[in-house]
Amino acid sequence: MALADTRFATRRRALAAKLAAQRIDSILVTSPIHVRYLSGFTGSNGALIVNKDLSAQICTDGRYTTQIAEEVPDIEALMERNSAVALLSQVAGPRRIAFEASQTTIAELDALKDALQEDVTLVPVTGVVESIRLHKDNFELDRLREVAALASQAFEDLLAAGELAEGRTERQVAADLEYRMRMLGAERTSFDTIVASGLNSAKPHHSAGDRVLSHGDLVTIDFGAHSRGFNSDMTRTLVMGSAGDFEAEIYDVVLRAQLAGVEAAYAGTPLADIDAACRSIIEDAGYGEYFVHSTGHGIGLEVHEAPGAAKNAPGVLDAGSTLTIEPGIYVPGKGGVRIEDTLIITEGAPEIITKVSKDLRIV
Amino acid sequence: MALADTRFATRRRALAAKLAAQRIDSILVTSPIHVRYLSGFTGSNGALIVNKDLSAQICTDGRYTTQIAEEVPDIEALMERNSAVALLSQVAGPRRIAFEASQTTIAELDALKDALQEDVTLVPVTGVVESIRLHKDNFELDRLREVAALASQAFEDLLAAGELAEGRTERQVAADLEYRMRMLGAERTSFDTIVASGLNSAKPHHSAGDRVLSHGDLVTIDFGAHSRGFNSDMTRTLVMGSAGDFEAEIYDVVLRAQLAGVEAAYAGTPLADIDAACRSIIEDAGYGEYFVHSTGHGIGLEVHEAPGAAKNAPGVLDAGSTLTIEPGIYVPGKGGVRIEDTLIITEGAPEIITKVSKDLRIV
Repeated sequence: MALADTRFATRRRALAAKLAAQRIDSILVTSPIHVRYLSGFTGSNGALIVNKDLSAQICTDGRYTTQIAEEVPDIEALMERNSAVALLSQVAGPRRIAFEASQTTIAELDALKDALQEDVTLVPVTGVVESIRLHKDNFELDRLREVAALASQAFEDLLAAGELAEGRTERQVAADLEYRMRMLGAERTSFDTIVASGLNSAKPHHSAGDRVLSHGDLVTIDFGAHSRGFNSDMTRTLVMGSAGDFEAEIYDVVLRAQLAGVEAAYAGTPLADIDAACRSIIEDAGYGEYFVHSTGHGIGLEVHEAPGAAKNAPGVLDAGSTLTIEPGIYVPGKGGVRIEDTLIITEGAPEIITKVSKDLRIV
Repeated sequence: MALADTRFATRRRALAAKLAAQRIDSILVTSPIHVRYLSGFTGSNGALIVNKDLSAQICTDGRYTTQIAEEVPDIEALMERNSAVALLSQVAGPRRIAFEASQTTIAELDALKDALQEDVTLVPVTGVVESIRLHKDNFELDRLREVAALASQAFEDLLAAGELAEGRTERQVAADLEYRMRMLGAERTSFDTIVASGLNSAKPHHSAGDRVLSHGDLVTIDFGAHSRGFNSDMTRTLVMGSAGDFEAEIYDVVLRAQLAGVEAAYAGTPLADIDAACRSIIEDAGYGEYFVHSTGHGIGLEVHEAPGAAKNAPGVLDAGSTLTIEPGIYVPGKGGVRIEDTLIITEGAPEIITKVSKDLRIV
């Protein structure tokens, strides 16, 4: 418990430093993910105020009386149903209070404005907590390693059990993989599992339907587990029975692109260059028009978060951030391949936390 | 396809009528659920404008070129990544355009304001689409019946297969139930499955952990399936091996309360009266302080939507809406019971779509 307190207080300290730089006295945090990130509270209704002097107040409703005392022993808790309004109405002026403009709706802001005491001003800010979340601390990195390991294990177990087999449907394979992740400790999937076989593999957003896996199919499986707040994300493409020339060729191109992307992904690399590292290999092989999405995204408390590696992405990669590298080729009417790893970014070679072989597997 | 078009156009007609009553020319819809409800488009990025003359425009990005043509054949589609801004920037004034204040963040509104042509005014509205969604059409009612039937079947199969058994963990039972729903066609769960056994059954928000089911336990299972956009929601409490006096007593009280709630749930009944119908029985039995939540909520495209049956809820129940009836008793340190059905509301007796026996089952 003492350790947990330190972690959340450290994050709040980083936040307070950012506020001070913007001449802001306090920030009202209402996004459940950000409340959890800054306090440890996992309930569905909560609001948090962090002040520049590092003091803080939190509010939730009566359903969570026991839970908030256990999870947030170091912040005084107010118990009210309308948590953000209740918390804000207690703040005396003069005070400049930031709120998260990309997390607050117009209707919510109207309610907040009605709760303001004299000389309390609301100041919209964007991306402040996100900029702290970009750099994962050791606790977060460990959780991300664990959930990626869990998902990797489930996938290997699925293959070892022969559950990816001709004659089974995409949906059956997805259900088996999800069941295995669940039994290994996942609370749910991070997103709807993709099992895209045969011509469906040419659709990047196919989910998992009633198609029966058949000899010669490419099968793309894109899946993630959610555990204790954190998400995993990985894609592997396999071949059923035997690989034709087309299937073997695009697999080889995508794999080379993916390896080039991983190799480029160290701290300081422009994000656009990581995209280019993958994309140029696919373009050189003549499949450029079939790589229809960007190369990767950060992952943590959200499945898609900063940074983003895309064609014209601004900025560079930071140490301590995460990134997926997931090039793909999707040829309508023929088939597709995507290979995706999740990386932890360092000054040197990245740490790949989705430790499943990328050799072409024929099952 | 022709049928589908009629359905969405009918919903847009109802929306246009509400706009006209408020002297609004058009509405910009950005919530994915509302875009889907009004157009049929199921992609993750989309915006829709509906005009009072019943014309409409829709926008999504290049990933969905094929999909939007298939799903929305009757509305001209614009292909742009920043869909709401792109759509709005094409609107010429003079024009009063509503936007959904409870679905739009401050940051999003700022971007929209920058895209406005001269004499185009943005007007915040709240609950307009929600008020149409409150009354389910026959297509929606059929989908809700189907997904509730799917979940009910999975639960019966779980019991028939002996998967709810002493010696198994809450998590194993949840995983088995979820697997069965998935194999019967669900795309995912509607919410994290609750399997709360023994003393955990006294926590309304317990999920499913590593506790092993034991002789004499109350086991509360609250679960839902999501399929084709729609959700189900049902709770049953069972007893392992044999029921003690306390367990049998609170089961009897909750069941009588639940039946009274169902009996009260017809069109025209004040929502507060439905809550009172359940609550008074639990209070009369001396357990009033242990019924710590409200009686029920609507369900459809969202798991929790209007109406709400609570102590001081305003308004009355409408025909064609949905409502859960889910009283519970939670005695800390002893155990708890919750029984929940989902109803379709009519002028007469409600239609219960969660068709699983509510007799006390001992497994």
